[in-house]
Amino acid sequence: MERVKKIKSGDVRTASRLIRNLEDGMDEARAMMKHIFPLTGHSHVIGITGSPGAGKSTLVDGLVESFRKKDKTVGVLAVDPTSPFTGGAILGDRIRMQRHAEDPGVFVRSLATRGALGGLAKAVGDAIHIMDVMGKDIVLVETVGTGQQEVDIINHSHTVIVVLIPGMGDEIQAIKAGILEIADIFVINKADREGSSKLRREIMAMLDMAPASAFPAGWRPPILKCDNAFEPVGFTKSLEEMSQTIENHYQHLVKHDLLGSRVHRKAAMELNEAIRCSVLDPVLSALAANGELERMVEQLMKKDTDPYTLAEEIARRYLKTAP
Amino acid sequence: MERVKKIKSGDVRTASRLIRNLEDGMDEARAMMKHIFPLTGHSHVIGITGSPGAGKSTLVDGLVESFRKKDKTVGVLAVDPTSPFTGGAILGDRIRMQRHAEDPGVFVRSLATRGALGGLAKAVGDAIHIMDVMGKDIVLVETVGTGQQEVDIINHSHTVIVVLIPGMGDEIQAIKAGILEIADIFVINKADREGSSKLRREIMAMLDMAPASAFPAGWRPPILKCDNAFEPVGFTKSLEEMSQTIENHYQHLVKHDLLGSRVHRKAAMELNEAIRCSVLDPVLSALAANGELERMVEQLMKKDTDPYTLAEEIARRYLKTAP
Repeated sequence: MERVKKIKSGDVRTASRLIRNLEDGMDEARAMMKHIFPLTGHSHVIGITGSPGAGKSTLVDGLVESFRKKDKTVGVLAVDPTSPFTGGAILGDRIRMQRHAEDPGVFVRSLATRGALGGLAKAVGDAIHIMDVMGKDIVLVETVGTGQQEVDIINHSHTVIVVLIPGMGDEIQAIKAGILEIADIFVINKADREGSSKLRREIMAMLDMAPASAFPAGWRPPILKCDNAFEPVGFTKSLEEMSQTIENHYQHLVKHDLLGSRVHRKAAMELNEAIRCSVLDPVLSALAANGELERMVEQLMKKDTDPYTLAEEIARRYLKTAP
Repeated sequence: MERVKKIKSGDVRTASRLIRNLEDGMDEARAMMKHIFPLTGHSHVIGITGSPGAGKSTLVDGLVESFRKKDKTVGVLAVDPTSPFTGGAILGDRIRMQRHAEDPGVFVRSLATRGALGGLAKAVGDAIHIMDVMGKDIVLVETVGTGQQEVDIINHSHTVIVVLIPGMGDEIQAIKAGILEIADIFVINKADREGSSKLRREIMAMLDMAPASAFPAGWRPPILKCDNAFEPVGFTKSLEEMSQTIENHYQHLVKHDLLGSRVHRKAAMELNEAIRCSVLDPVLSALAANGELERMVEQLMKKDTDPYTLAEEIARRYLKTAP
């Protein structure tokens, strides 16, 4: 196909349009992914997550520069929190990383949540595939927050970086624990702040409590520090250490034959998302299109019936075999 | 039914067991919800969300006390971030709000994410129904973060409180904007910190930019301040103001006939969740049970096929009418 060829040659416009059409749920774009998927497998996908305000965007920006210095091409995928009603990314591509805008070796896209039917994790997976086929050596996926959706998104990655900052209060404990098992590298950002050593000790303590099986082939997540971004020399040094650690992690995966398990996790999740998209979404769309969904909601409001009974009726109507 | 009667009488043990069984996806528990649902509609459901570290738990604890002083019974549902691998709430019920443990007018439960199939929003909706039927006047739902999942959870509420703290960096901008449209009340917590006035101005500016339609019947979300929790007098005063504002909001909904639109939003989302549970989950379970899902993942890893083609085949096999 002509457009697949164009994407393979790195054509930004064709790639951008395909990503947008996938976000909009266009069937034709979906069909095209069948031709994209077999060509994937080149990129090292790096997920970066952490609390709002942890300074992830600045780190991503710095990592891009660090990888570019090593002559690697980079794709950046920023997953933005958005309004459930209006949709659309708040932090658009335009205001992100403007200094890389002129560099053809860097391709930046934002993806946004589009309502409950969105399937954001699926859109992220598709966009990673496209950047992969464009030939990007590195794909950086940045996401905010630590809910299940973020874990799904981050599971597309080979290497997962969790960014933390000192002094976030007690709740950070729960979050750290929640993402402990998916972190390959911890970064303490704004490490010049009070509480930095305490945070480091807490992460160490948690890692100490984890079973050996949590560290595949002995990879215990290193804890890097990143100082104030306003001290350029220290910041650049931190970033070089970070990009080196990322490469070390990838080499570790390759050396110990662990890349397969990451790819397995990625494939399993993608399949799940694709099935949701093909099985559930058409049922919901059909019910919405003929106004039935709305009538059912009104029945529920009057308590004429309950959601459990309605859902079972729908399953009997649309599924070949009763559940 | 005997157990429904027990729940109606406020029996904590029966209610707890039902919530747990629903979390575990037991069919029998699901069937029981058909008898619970018609009895609901008593509680005022209040959702509290905000960034990690914003101090939501302390506010919830204080609000419980404030509502108890007014002789209202209270249910608290804490939605915890958890490990995607091990499951289970990190912050258990035991360490939450121990000072209310002896008060029969307070019922506290934690719910946890349980993997991608979880349907956490559905579990939350079910638990709210159960607390409602137990006769709780107030149900407080506390959730961390601001992703789509959190929005789904918070959409179960009649009144939504968004808690913010000063000095969280630029990313907070995106989050504030993302949840602006679901907030009925803003609380600036830790308002004695630097940056409090700036944050207040930012929220005001955003509200100024919103269209009039964003404020149903003229309810412009008030911005409350809550000072340091370690100054008991000021803190108690803040909480009384907060609980009064919450009641004002409810009266506003009732007076302007807006409760219906909240109930509509809640019912629509519940129906969606129930359909996912009845239509998609049985398909995924069937494929997992006979090992087919795993074989497909292996095919994907070898790039013998792609997820889009596989998902379409599955849809043809399980759906009566092709999408």
